[in-house]
Amino acid sequence: MEYKVKVHWGDTDAAGIVFYPNFYKWMDEATHEFLSAIGHPTDALFKENIALPLIETHCDFKRPVLYNVELIVKSEVVLLKEKVFKLLHQFYCEGQLVAEGYEVRAWASTAEGCARAVTIPEQVKNKLGLKE
Amino acid sequence: MEYKVKVHWGDTDAAGIVFYPNFYKWMDEATHEFLSAIGHPTDALFKENIALPLIETHCDFKRPVLYNVELIVKSEVVLLKEKVFKLLHQFYCEGQLVAEGYEVRAWASTAEGCARAVTIPEQVKNKLGLKE
Amino acid sequence: MEYKVKVHWGDTDAAGIVFYPNFYKWMDEATHEFLSAIGHPTDALFKENIALPLIETHCDFKRPVLYNVELIVKSEVVLLKEKVFKLLHQFYCEGQLVAEGYEVRAWASTAEGCARAVTIPEQVKNKLGLKE
Amino acid sequence: MEYKVKVHWGDTDAAGIVFYPNFYKWMDEATHEFLSAIGHPTDALFKENIALPLIETHCDFKRPVLYNVELIVKSEVVLLKEKVFKLLHQFYCEGQLVAEGYEVRAWASTAEGCARAVTIPEQVKNKLGLKE
Repeated sequence: MEYKVKVHWGDTDAAGIVFYPNFYKWMDEATHEFLSAIGHPTDALFKENIALPLIETHCDFKRPVLYNVELIVKSEVVLLKEKVFKLLHQFYCEGQLVAEGYEVRAWASTAEGCARAVTIPEQVKNKLGLKE
Repeated sequence: MEYKVKVHWGDTDAAGIVFYPNFYKWMDEATHEFLSAIGHPTDALFKENIALPLIETHCDFKRPVLYNVELIVKSEVVLLKEKVFKLLHQFYCEGQLVAEGYEVRAWASTAEGCARAVTIPEQVKNKLGLKE
Repeated sequence: MEYKVKVHWGDTDAAGIVFYPNFYKWMDEATHEFLSAIGHPTDALFKENIALPLIETHCDFKRPVLYNVELIVKSEVVLLKEKVFKLLHQFYCEGQLVAEGYEVRAWASTAEGCARAVTIPEQVKNKLGLKE
Repeated sequence: MEYKVKVHWGDTDAAGIVFYPNFYKWMDEATHEFLSAIGHPTDALFKENIALPLIETHCDFKRPVLYNVELIVKSEVVLLKEKVFKLLHQFYCEGQLVAEGYEVRAWASTAEGCARAVTIPEQVKNKLGLKE
């Protein structure tokens, strides 16, 4: 899936480049768009007591990114386990890879209060785009 | 009440000064600190189905604020009506007023789903620091 | 001018609605888009030592805004003085006005270090869409 | 070094817990505090044309963090190479490790425009707290 991001003035810091936590904000946005695209928007999951808590996130920064450019985030599931999946997010600016990160998330039930990882339903697994 | 804010690197933009929406983020923080100080932290109110939705906010910017300074926010209730109150927030940097804003908030019940303004309890009114 | 905003997960707070400083972040984005649309993107102005510091901002909140909706921000210059202009930003959600704010900004030269308000060039005034 | 963080209302999302990119914002803050503590605040470095661009960042999330708690971030340099260093940041809440991340940053000169990694001065290396 591709998700477009415009770099806004407020995304920069006094060094004139993107303040790095914003790359994670954009990864999170790309994940939510990805989930909407496969028919499971976060608010719908939330009503079904399903949350997708983060286990681990990572990003490699390859080039500084300036104000006013458009980034394309390419997202895909690269690992799919029983209760956990890993989303790779690649940031491109004018065809060039400028950053690459990932999120590892659990499929969790919040029915009993705190989140507890549960088995990802088979139909969701199929949509996430990878089979074990 | 006084609330201290350190201006962090990520609070600035490419012009090297504070990105202005952060002043509102700090007003919100000051309000929550104010509420905690008078014995009504937001999470406790939330559990009692009380929310304090914003009706109106405003800020006048008097001087640009740079990275790494400490701001002191002085907050006080300047208007107190039956269901609504107004908090003034003044930002000082080294004794100088650099910004001044306010928030008008309702005292609202969320017991029936969406927030509905209700009468501010008399004991809360007293603590908010002003009588009508 | 119209600017579209998608409300992301990270824009909400624990009350499940938009954290209000984000409305100012979106006003700022709408202003930069407005300036780009009339041929004066902020980064180009910046290189010419022109900045547009905020003097005053304001917002009235009419309805709570939830995750995953799309907002349309309608922006127009409603006041144009020698060195200062006022941009009105109206936020619509499904045709309904949910918030309305404004920014008062100076046209300022940063050539001598700190920003100093200067006369808005006549050609810019014309593009801003209003004559005195 | 220890850096204290109060979790504010705006740091949470609609799930009622901290929106995860904020952990990176806090790591960045902790790094700037660390640099100030050893006598090299970012704005001073910036004036000497030294920047500390990110190469890689990572975070493991161990427990969800709620509104209104205080976090203690313990930061230390765990790797120190010729031009690059790695800062470990551990987040504690009431004595319990809730998240653990790191940043790999270059010591870079911006004297010729874009940032170029240069040798970390010997005196800085000593202060960073580790020798090769």
